[in-house]
Amino acid sequence: MTQTNIASERHLLGLRQLGKEEIVGILDRAAHWERQTNKVNPVLEGKFVANMFFENSTRTRFSFEVAEKRLGAQVLNFSAAASSVEKGESIYDTVRTLESMGIDAGVIRMKPIGLLAELADKIKVPLINAGDGNNEHPTQALLDLYTMRKTFGEIKGLTVSIIGDILHSRVARSNLWGLHKLGANVKFCAPDNMQAPDLSEYAPYVGLEEALQADVVMALRVQLERHDKGFIRSAEEYREHYGLTVERAAAMQPHAIIMHPAPVNRGVEIDDELVEHEKSKIFTQMSHGVPIRMAVIERALA
Amino acid sequence: MTQTNIASERHLLGLRQLGKEEIVGILDRAAHWERQTNKVNPVLEGKFVANMFFENSTRTRFSFEVAEKRLGAQVLNFSAAASSVEKGESIYDTVRTLESMGIDAGVIRMKPIGLLAELADKIKVPLINAGDGNNEHPTQALLDLYTMRKTFGEIKGLTVSIIGDILHSRVARSNLWGLHKLGANVKFCAPDNMQAPDLSEYAPYVGLEEALQADVVMALRVQLERHDKGFIRSAEEYREHYGLTVERAAAMQPHAIIMHPAPVNRGVEIDDELVEHEKSKIFTQMSHGVPIRMAVIERALA
Amino acid sequence: MTQTNIASERHLLGLRQLGKEEIVGILDRAAHWERQTNKVNPVLEGKFVANMFFENSTRTRFSFEVAEKRLGAQVLNFSAAASSVEKGESIYDTVRTLESMGIDAGVIRMKPIGLLAELADKIKVPLINAGDGNNEHPTQALLDLYTMRKTFGEIKGLTVSIIGDILHSRVARSNLWGLHKLGANVKFCAPDNMQAPDLSEYAPYVGLEEALQADVVMALRVQLERHDKGFIRSAEEYREHYGLTVERAAAMQPHAIIMHPAPVNRGVEIDDELVEHEKSKIFTQMSHGVPIRMAVIERALA
Repeated sequence: MTQTNIASERHLLGLRQLGKEEIVGILDRAAHWERQTNKVNPVLEGKFVANMFFENSTRTRFSFEVAEKRLGAQVLNFSAAASSVEKGESIYDTVRTLESMGIDAGVIRMKPIGLLAELADKIKVPLINAGDGNNEHPTQALLDLYTMRKTFGEIKGLTVSIIGDILHSRVARSNLWGLHKLGANVKFCAPDNMQAPDLSEYAPYVGLEEALQADVVMALRVQLERHDKGFIRSAEEYREHYGLTVERAAAMQPHAIIMHPAPVNRGVEIDDELVEHEKSKIFTQMSHGVPIRMAVIERALA
Repeated sequence: MTQTNIASERHLLGLRQLGKEEIVGILDRAAHWERQTNKVNPVLEGKFVANMFFENSTRTRFSFEVAEKRLGAQVLNFSAAASSVEKGESIYDTVRTLESMGIDAGVIRMKPIGLLAELADKIKVPLINAGDGNNEHPTQALLDLYTMRKTFGEIKGLTVSIIGDILHSRVARSNLWGLHKLGANVKFCAPDNMQAPDLSEYAPYVGLEEALQADVVMALRVQLERHDKGFIRSAEEYREHYGLTVERAAAMQPHAIIMHPAPVNRGVEIDDELVEHEKSKIFTQMSHGVPIRMAVIERALA
Repeated sequence: MTQTNIASERHLLGLRQLGKEEIVGILDRAAHWERQTNKVNPVLEGKFVANMFFENSTRTRFSFEVAEKRLGAQVLNFSAAASSVEKGESIYDTVRTLESMGIDAGVIRMKPIGLLAELADKIKVPLINAGDGNNEHPTQALLDLYTMRKTFGEIKGLTVSIIGDILHSRVARSNLWGLHKLGANVKFCAPDNMQAPDLSEYAPYVGLEEALQADVVMALRVQLERHDKGFIRSAEEYREHYGLTVERAAAMQPHAIIMHPAPVNRGVEIDDELVEHEKSKIFTQMSHGVPIRMAVIERALA
């Protein structure tokens, strides 16, 4: 990926390409925003940010929108379901169109992998990745890192287990790159058909018992319909073999925490009772999404 | 229903639980807002209000949005059709997510009955009911009360006939509770299969001729597809037996008014020519929706 | 069409009824807005504009929304897909409802032809046509005129060829009326089943070779599914006989420009390589949409 345009260093395409200093800078700035008692701080007054979602989303789009409005930006929401992309208009043409209309930054979610780097080369305004296929979801990983740092003081030396559908998970990938840069130790745990061959050189796959002996146990959302029926054939079987049950949570270390990118399939990858359990940071993660995205958008437009 | 959280008295779940003084307070404050010549009065600057519609709506969502923006609030619009609720995320998790992101109040419409009281117990920010199943639609009833009070000076002693699908109508229920608290006399008029057994102790069912001899004749929207075919088998038959026709309107008392919560099925529950007739308050009702909702949101966030 | 209400002269229903002075006035004011370096100029602070799209749209709705926000207006977005219009509510009732809620102007796109003039007679707030059936799309033609005037200095004396589905094109119609008023010479080029009988008295149909010898070659979006299979049976055949290919573009005059209202079917009505070619004004047109719409909305609300 070459980035030649003037805005390149203000894009946020993924954590794989981001330096450690950049990541820490974003986490520090998010801490600044989290401390603000004024909800709206109009540092981006008069700037237009377009949220372009070529895949549906509730929480991510809302989290960005709150972040943008807290910075005083003007917000434009685009979702593919209500648009002419349905009649075959390309993602590139849509983004280029919004750029022509004078937006100052774009937040973008889409299925195709690799297209974002191409767009970032051609589009002059900074682009922020809100999830591209199973490639990256950098703001999710940043809010996860933020949550871990806030809980444990520092990320270096932590052991983080990521359990579930690694193969289809952009959250797993972005966390892997970010956690490694900040010195954490990552382990995966997944049934054979949910393992990602391209990641096997970066982190070991371990059994569930070992995965539970971590500082952070991060369960991923499972979508069984995406998989050929292998070892795991139903939600019940998934829970039996990989689910974070109340019993398994009790076997975790006292200081360890539970994370999940949400939305949760309650009773599948994680038991209902654990979602708001004292070990769980699930809704805390979501609340951290806003200051993280404020930091990312501010960085894009500063 | 127990409400133990700090925001409880600022929720608006329904008129059944609301005291007379509270209702009058909201009507009075709406009158204040209706008198304002400045469109935007930023008393809620820096506050975030989320409109969470798990059922589609045009007029109600817009009316809330105008009200929120006239108060200077930041508005977030969520509709289930364009969201991940489709992939099975629960209403609770969605509301809890938005709360985590820092919204200050939530306006919510949804199908399930009883869930709202549960949510109000668990969610810390005030919630405003924009319609829950066939249970309540308090802001609609408040704007109806406001319209009646403005027309007749006071509500005490008025006779209000509500005609149509009482069984499925949250509007009928909220009006019933509100009208009784303010001293009006309520009558229902409906075919057998549209009568609500749970309400028969509160208001009598009368024939159409008697129903027309009221100060207010309120027709409800009919959705025949919701009913087993009974006595009424078609829109034409509905109009013949229960429709407010031009002839029937002519038999109303000279001072009496026509109301309807809209959207109207023209030519079914009410004749086309009557919608904007001098006796009709239908579009006036809609215009009162904005100051009523300003009063309700202000109360939630004050 | 009679326009008796007080706002009549501030509607923008089409260019056919608009005088030359009015058109030039809008183009001049757009030039003013294009020169502004401040993105937001709150001349419409406290005004509410509703974008009511009864047909889906990406670019037009966004362009209006950017224009409205750059003028400091409060924006309400309505799209039929997410609304109760689906359950049979009429367009008139929806517009009348929004008017009752206190909007100051409405931007409206819809399929039915003739309805807009009827609405403009009944609705008190100014209405702006964002495309009605195959009748008119005045803001698109205004931004096209603006682009031509900016490129060539003046429109008088230019030859403009419009190629493609004239029959279904509101863009062709609005451009025809506007170009004639400003003294340009219009030619059409289309297969038999895409010619518009009602327009044959206003502009001649010419062959493609002659059409290419113009100052402006404007290709229209083709939707083959709208047509009985005649001479043209596929996208490939369309390109072969009417497409603006790289070879054909090379035969255009050196000073001549390519235009297209977008979205483009790349490789059908225009070759991929030409979309961002130096002769192409396609994305420039889009960027002109914002100042044109600022001028139109300002005119409506001044």
